[in-house]
Amino acid sequence: MLNSGINRISSKELSERMGITASQIRQDLNCFGGFGQQGYGYNVESLYKEIGRILGLDNNFQTIIIGAGNMGRALANYKNFEKRGFKLIGIFDKDPKVVGQKINDLDVRHIDDLQKFTQENKVDIAMLCVPHDETPIVAEKAAACGIKGLWNFSPMELKLSHSNVNKNIVIENVHLSDSLMVLGYKINEMMKANKNELPR
Amino acid sequence: MLNSGINRISSKELSERMGITASQIRQDLNCFGGFGQQGYGYNVESLYKEIGRILGLDNNFQTIIIGAGNMGRALANYKNFEKRGFKLIGIFDKDPKVVGQKINDLDVRHIDDLQKFTQENKVDIAMLCVPHDETPIVAEKAAACGIKGLWNFSPMELKLSHSNVNKNIVIENVHLSDSLMVLGYKINEMMKANKNELPR
Repeated sequence: MLNSGINRISSKELSERMGITASQIRQDLNCFGGFGQQGYGYNVESLYKEIGRILGLDNNFQTIIIGAGNMGRALANYKNFEKRGFKLIGIFDKDPKVVGQKINDLDVRHIDDLQKFTQENKVDIAMLCVPHDETPIVAEKAAACGIKGLWNFSPMELKLSHSNVNKNIVIENVHLSDSLMVLGYKINEMMKANKNELPR
Repeated sequence: MLNSGINRISSKELSERMGITASQIRQDLNCFGGFGQQGYGYNVESLYKEIGRILGLDNNFQTIIIGAGNMGRALANYKNFEKRGFKLIGIFDKDPKVVGQKINDLDVRHIDDLQKFTQENKVDIAMLCVPHDETPIVAEKAAACGIKGLWNFSPMELKLSHSNVNKNIVIENVHLSDSLMVLGYKINEMMKANKNELPR
């Protein structure tokens, strides 16, 4: 909306765009203070800034990718992350054939250089794109380097073993299957609905 | 739990594993009839089956991938989807250099063969892994072939233009940035909490 030059929007219009109720939008935003005004709605620019502030996007998180396979490369090519304040500054792998390759102007580094790299650079987030079995080991390694957040693409639910580590690191597990199952559910619901509409 | 031989579980234990309240779990499952018994909890095997039935996983959805770039290849290598009832039967691309390559025993086919392929095979879901600008065109093409669900990995919010098409197709947009922003938010909250715990 900001890019399209829209200055203000009502919670009703917002709800139509987002597919949730206006009341839900008002309730959610009220949890953070509420930024709308009765009869006016929301000022788009200030709403954009406030939501960015809530999410901490003004922090400019620095990220690395561990695992330069297909998923790691796909994430490295995502243009949207940097726009949202997440800057990719390093890519790591353990495969000697991959180390030294260039992906989007970044040299793939060896995973053994992770500790040195994190000492020389502020790294907030590691995107874990390594095979399932290697994920826990790599996660512990990243945690030991003081990385604050792990974004886990392995299909396993990642948990760290040391509770004193847990207090200083956040894990976000990306379960792609969940989203696919939601799609499957919606297809079923659609087919049931369409069937009920057939002429008898 | 089923794989670990657990027979029954209380909503309280479930809530600890899932990180949501027991009351929420009971409420959610009650929307579909409720499968627990006061004082007993849930039978794991029947709960597993019921949730699978709700999600329609017994349907055995057949899927294709459109776009054999990094994201498409990463999805083709995901082992979890087939376990959940989503079977990959085709991969399509428009790049002549990629068409004919083998990914996990599947030949990459030319996108021009999509219509013929969908006439000869039941295709329920297309996973869209094409560049941003090409996504709407590819989506319309898939919809015209009678595919019932689109799983969109482009950062754009995909909407189809024809309302008569919309009634027969479901779109699930995967917004990876959303999950990354959630992680950023949690890191901020953690850092605030840790700061407040410092000795004064």
